[in-house]
Amino acid sequence: MYKVKVFVTLRESVLDPQGSAVQHALHSMNYKEVNDVRIGKYMELTIEKTERDLDATVREMCEKLLANTVIEDYRYEVEEVVAQ
Amino acid sequence: MYKVKVFVTLRESVLDPQGSAVQHALHSMNYKEVNDVRIGKYMELTIEKTERDLDATVREMCEKLLANTVIEDYRYEVEEVVAQ
Repeated sequence: MYKVKVFVTLRESVLDPQGSAVQHALHSMNYKEVNDVRIGKYMELTIEKTERDLDATVREMCEKLLANTVIEDYRYEVEEVVAQ
Repeated sequence: MYKVKVFVTLRESVLDPQGSAVQHALHSMNYKEVNDVRIGKYMELTIEKTERDLDATVREMCEKLLANTVIEDYRYEVEEVVAQ
């Protein structure tokens, strides 16, 4: 079994109004040292071992459903979970 | 300058309807090997160096604004950014 952590973030060139709102909120709470905030999604998938190639499967799932590749980038980390 | 990556996830005991919806979507796309999906938030903050303790500041920002600690857990990673 694998635990796959997927990070989906807006591309650099895309405006992030949610991030700006959080940054403004932090400034008004007196955390003036915060220069920039970008907000993305974080997903943890638990995936069974199959004969299919895990990397190919995860990339496919990201391209087709989890990320909108027109405006978002994704990256992922795989961790093998040893059954107890 | 620091880049702080904050991960906010629902606590284990809290239902994640958004995660279930994504899991069902993946199953209907024939990724039956996906056992569980949990969805959280991922934030990248760029923070200037100050005399304040960075860890204390980040924890405060998480507790007060970025995470709802009643239902969410958070963790973060700090990366020092060297000015070019």
